[in-house]
Amino acid sequence: MTIPATEGVRAVAERAKAASRSLRIATSTQKDELLLAIATDLEAKIDEILEANVCDVERESANGMSEALLDRLALSPERISSIAAATRAVAALPDPVGNVVRGRHLPNGLHMRQVRVPMGVIGMIYEARPNVSVDAAILALKAGSAVILRGGRAAIETNRVLVSLMRASLERQGMPADLVATIDEFGREGGVALMRARGLVDLVIPRGGASLIRTVVENSLVPVIETGVGNCHVYIDSSADSQKALAIAVNAKVQRPGVCNAAETLLLHKECAADLAPRILEALAAYGVKLHVCEATAHLLDQQNLSHNGSGISYTAATETDWECEYHALDMAVKIVDSREEALEHIRRYSTGHTEAIVAEDYSTIREFVANIESAAVMVNASTRFTDGGELGLGAEIGISTQKLHARGPMGLEELTTTMWIVEGEGHVRN
Amino acid sequence: MTIPATEGVRAVAERAKAASRSLRIATSTQKDELLLAIATDLEAKIDEILEANVCDVERESANGMSEALLDRLALSPERISSIAAATRAVAALPDPVGNVVRGRHLPNGLHMRQVRVPMGVIGMIYEARPNVSVDAAILALKAGSAVILRGGRAAIETNRVLVSLMRASLERQGMPADLVATIDEFGREGGVALMRARGLVDLVIPRGGASLIRTVVENSLVPVIETGVGNCHVYIDSSADSQKALAIAVNAKVQRPGVCNAAETLLLHKECAADLAPRILEALAAYGVKLHVCEATAHLLDQQNLSHNGSGISYTAATETDWECEYHALDMAVKIVDSREEALEHIRRYSTGHTEAIVAEDYSTIREFVANIESAAVMVNASTRFTDGGELGLGAEIGISTQKLHARGPMGLEELTTTMWIVEGEGHVRN
Repeated sequence: MTIPATEGVRAVAERAKAASRSLRIATSTQKDELLLAIATDLEAKIDEILEANVCDVERESANGMSEALLDRLALSPERISSIAAATRAVAALPDPVGNVVRGRHLPNGLHMRQVRVPMGVIGMIYEARPNVSVDAAILALKAGSAVILRGGRAAIETNRVLVSLMRASLERQGMPADLVATIDEFGREGGVALMRARGLVDLVIPRGGASLIRTVVENSLVPVIETGVGNCHVYIDSSADSQKALAIAVNAKVQRPGVCNAAETLLLHKECAADLAPRILEALAAYGVKLHVCEATAHLLDQQNLSHNGSGISYTAATETDWECEYHALDMAVKIVDSREEALEHIRRYSTGHTEAIVAEDYSTIREFVANIESAAVMVNASTRFTDGGELGLGAEIGISTQKLHARGPMGLEELTTTMWIVEGEGHVRN
Repeated sequence: MTIPATEGVRAVAERAKAASRSLRIATSTQKDELLLAIATDLEAKIDEILEANVCDVERESANGMSEALLDRLALSPERISSIAAATRAVAALPDPVGNVVRGRHLPNGLHMRQVRVPMGVIGMIYEARPNVSVDAAILALKAGSAVILRGGRAAIETNRVLVSLMRASLERQGMPADLVATIDEFGREGGVALMRARGLVDLVIPRGGASLIRTVVENSLVPVIETGVGNCHVYIDSSADSQKALAIAVNAKVQRPGVCNAAETLLLHKECAADLAPRILEALAAYGVKLHVCEATAHLLDQQNLSHNGSGISYTAATETDWECEYHALDMAVKIVDSREEALEHIRRYSTGHTEAIVAEDYSTIREFVANIESAAVMVNASTRFTDGGELGLGAEIGISTQKLHARGPMGLEELTTTMWIVEGEGHVRN
């Protein structure tokens, strides 16, 4: 860690902290007008943004970046419009700041209330997705906090333009530009310095793959909220309705396989496996899903394939890695379990604490499953894909928290705030 | 860090995690009966506890421990009865587990609810106060979590007896003994191992002095909630009612100077200083408070002392250290400020984010002060001593959080839980 990065980031964080005081006392109207101005400016500067983005895309393409990652990096007029539209949608959300969480008169006449207040300064560490730069900034601003962005190196030109655009919007709205800052110029060391800026930065949110998140968790002195790694399971109980089981297993895997709330492992109770496994696995295979299966499933599929003269479903044998990993792709691990206890045991061992689903009709089975799941979300007869701020009516989210402190599951505006206690008396003292 | 401590603590944490699953699904009645059994056993074993405590006290006394610390270490039949009474009081509190934080039907017919669930395994790292061993354990158990205790070395014999007593109570109630464990036998390295047991331990709470808390924050990979360091301020505005000002300044300092919500610094607006400073400081001095004052205050006191023929209030000149420190004693720093802005500036610079108080009658002054305070609690015309779970009607507390994530201010049963999302459908999938 070189001195310049540490000092540079501390200077940025000090300015962000000072700037955050203006936003702390800003009205909801001022904040919403600011967001609308940013949306307008984004659309007005489409050419400038695209020019910078083309630089990034061409450089990374020449460096051999994969098509999938290039697709996440690339902007288009439509994508910029949709970022602007998302910004307007956040402006339209209710402001969590000032909400009274609880409050009452105490017997001695003191009035106490717990009120939502801004966090202060939020650091975001993420990968090469330029839309996150705007999403994170506008959610932080709406929640009354300054934001310091550390984006992926591959998006550096795009992020520079986006941040400078937002800073200009802030100034035109009479707010300090330092409410939005980037530390990309300080490289990796800047990211480390951000994680060490305890006392200046109130919260760091890593958003990206498992290794990025682990690095932040292990190195940060600033409190961290882990987001996003989702090794999600769908358990199909012997009491499951077969239509629901088929629909949910397929939807949880194939509807958008690259996201954290997609399912990675299918657990089937042995009593319904003979009937359901072939139908569900055939449907998955028809969507191009590669199956990584346990021995019992392989045995079932072999029987099935024999009766189809070998023209059946192909699979590979599942290894320990299959139970552990988040494929982010059209791959699914499949296991037949002897009991719901074994299903719970498997989930406990391999789950990343994101979302698990049960498909069942038996009341007590469902109740026991729900009581024993320790993940952020459990779906009963519904796809894992519903763990999403928009789907659950919570508004835009900055990520899905998979840890237990402060925020759990979809993390929206409310989770970007903290609270304080305000106690009013008339000269009250303690005896 | 030697291997034995790391391995030993991991084994304890693994057993605690496994045991926590029984408590997760225990009913409120089962948990309350368990707490009542512990209270009964504490009273039944007073002799055994005192015998161990005498060993600790005699050893530490011979080692030269201060009277104040020996007093915190020493138990008596009355103190044990009061720990038992506190245990019964926690049993009588409502159970936070299962509370629905929010919930509703979504437009597509899904029903979603966010429900309080146990944290899992909580680690407590604290100093030589044996009452904390029981307090922390019963709060964790009531909130549905296992607890791993790392107490001060000086209380090792007492803690061993207390933990073994609670483990026996657990077993007699048909619960796993491993819900309460001590790692004192592993010494300092055990504490470090506890902080590194990410994935097994869900939360570590340090309770003690500033250096203990800093060590935990800087070394822990497990999420930490900071508690307790309170450099609290009382600001007396020019619009203050002088009776309220006098009562609050004195109460905040002298009613119990050794605790975190006692005030350390008094800020006086210059327009009321000439009138109020001598009266308030005289009252503080009469309680034996040593005054550490700014130049302007010294000047005022000198004038006052002259007119009293030198028989007035004694003081020392305040240094930077006085503004920074939490005295935990009958000492108070005093500063005359030119404006409420200067008062806020001083608080921003030196506050530890615990509690600040304003004494004022002017509506806009109070509103501005409250809006600009970034601490966990702000008192308006009330003593800082009210930042307390019991006083605020929140029930027993495990500490006062001075950080922004998860818990802020008094941290009771609710703050020892997390939440999860339960979503119920009828085969719902995403389009």
